[in-house]
Amino acid sequence: MENNHTIIVDTLGSDKGPLEIIEGAKLLLENFSDLHIVLVGDEELIKQSNISLERIKIIDSKGTISNYDNPVEAFYKNKDVSIFKAFQEASENENAIGIISSGNSGALIVSTIKYLLKDRTIRPCMAAILPTTNNAFTCLVDTGATIDCVPSQLISFAHLGSEFMKLVYKIDRPRVGLLSNGAEETKGNKLVKETHKLLKEDAEINFVGNIEGNKTLSGLCDVLVCDGFAGNQVLKNSEGMAINLITEIVKFSKKNNDPNAMAIVKYLMQTYDFESLGAGIILGAKLPIMKCRGSSGRNAILNAGRIIYNIANNKTIYEGRDKRGE
Amino acid sequence: MENNHTIIVDTLGSDKGPLEIIEGAKLLLENFSDLHIVLVGDEELIKQSNISLERIKIIDSKGTISNYDNPVEAFYKNKDVSIFKAFQEASENENAIGIISSGNSGALIVSTIKYLLKDRTIRPCMAAILPTTNNAFTCLVDTGATIDCVPSQLISFAHLGSEFMKLVYKIDRPRVGLLSNGAEETKGNKLVKETHKLLKEDAEINFVGNIEGNKTLSGLCDVLVCDGFAGNQVLKNSEGMAINLITEIVKFSKKNNDPNAMAIVKYLMQTYDFESLGAGIILGAKLPIMKCRGSSGRNAILNAGRIIYNIANNKTIYEGRDKRGE
Repeated sequence: MENNHTIIVDTLGSDKGPLEIIEGAKLLLENFSDLHIVLVGDEELIKQSNISLERIKIIDSKGTISNYDNPVEAFYKNKDVSIFKAFQEASENENAIGIISSGNSGALIVSTIKYLLKDRTIRPCMAAILPTTNNAFTCLVDTGATIDCVPSQLISFAHLGSEFMKLVYKIDRPRVGLLSNGAEETKGNKLVKETHKLLKEDAEINFVGNIEGNKTLSGLCDVLVCDGFAGNQVLKNSEGMAINLITEIVKFSKKNNDPNAMAIVKYLMQTYDFESLGAGIILGAKLPIMKCRGSSGRNAILNAGRIIYNIANNKTIYEGRDKRGE
Repeated sequence: MENNHTIIVDTLGSDKGPLEIIEGAKLLLENFSDLHIVLVGDEELIKQSNISLERIKIIDSKGTISNYDNPVEAFYKNKDVSIFKAFQEASENENAIGIISSGNSGALIVSTIKYLLKDRTIRPCMAAILPTTNNAFTCLVDTGATIDCVPSQLISFAHLGSEFMKLVYKIDRPRVGLLSNGAEETKGNKLVKETHKLLKEDAEINFVGNIEGNKTLSGLCDVLVCDGFAGNQVLKNSEGMAINLITEIVKFSKKNNDPNAMAIVKYLMQTYDFESLGAGIILGAKLPIMKCRGSSGRNAILNAGRIIYNIANNKTIYEGRDKRGE
């Protein structure tokens, strides 16, 4: 039987424009010879881009949604938004193995709930897979899909993160940590304190307690749970700080005329490669949905597609990154 | 007239033990020939430590407060706690110019409110002065003193931070930013959205809008406002990430036998020197109160004392750090 694994790519919503996303789709087709792609976006532009139309289907859409729009209102007002069309296609196309979009996170969550929700009792979330100092990964949930959370939502995130790390990283009983302002049980804001109690009582969760902000990437847990506001801070702060230090090294290298320093910069950029690591995964959907950031280029699309492809083929994701040397 | 500038040093509460703190006090006396110190702690132990008792007064106390204790309850139960005795002394000693403690943050805030509050309408907070990539500093408030905040408290923090940056860094109209999950006005959790409106309407505040987590150290604002839970994340995450990257460089240096890499490590450790930068300052008190972290050694005490001394003498704090080169 023919393998028609199909990834749906939303070409709108990236700061770099649709042509850059189409270049990413080209890279995916080059790398995976059995892969098909549905491109959602301006049909005319896509055809003008000189992409070969073999293994390609186009769904015409010119509608986008900005960071200022309310995603729920947008959903009822304008079904032509490319994100919504991509999800509709994913829900109808039986070969679909995942979606890639650089669009509005809120709209992606709304679309998940409307078209691809796996379980009505579970709140979907946005996860990021972050590299840890002990050469492993931590699944951070939520990274910004739900900004104001209640404890039951954090419990959902813990379950979804655990399931994901079991399925994709083959970890038997993923250790779940709760982000707090201190390791002690008594530390935390109201949300964290209440969630702490619930996680402790949950027999399906392998809860290892509170994790402090300086230990988020220390590999103390496989799943790190927090509300979307805090998760967004962890994600962006880690990235910002990595960029700050790398910038300092570049300055140092120039000032001291030390070209070796640039080898270190290269090494760090690979270890903390935010173009590939920066993509978020929506958990709680029937298919993996990769949210690339607005600034994503073609390589981000390639990396996101590779993760979807590997999940569909039951391979470990982030090939070649799981063992990051000593 | 004799200058009797006196710093009160709480010798209890550090993970490294009182003798290490006493060594810090010795360094302070060596560095500032006109400085007097009040040591609060186990009198016998202090006398056995061989510290010269010239310019020293001892207040006996053996009481500490753990991270598990409720600071308000502790205050009414046991006035012998060294933190409370240090604050009592500061409120009675007219030569006092500041307090240094490595003890429980909550107890420091409670003591501030009980003994040294400057203005009953203002909620005191814990500030950290963080180095920015444009060679300046940002005052982060609150870093963990008030974990669950209401908007009016964040407004207090904005005022206190502005006042501090005006007084100590001689910045005319300090730019105040609000930590959020996006730069857009519509981004934020409920607390941030409400605070955003209030800051915009506040004529005394030079509000520059929301700041994202990857821009906290970019120098976009002089004062960065957030609740204590989020601020604790920013502070600890920045530190954790700096340590992670520095550790990676050390690994790289060993693996590639590149001793030059260690020069970079040294440079980064100076730039992101958390032993001196890690100390928090309580704002909203009649005197500067330096909170050193539990892991602080003698140099942290010296640095904290230097800041108090410089504030009392109307000098710029962090001498030699204000211009961090190109």
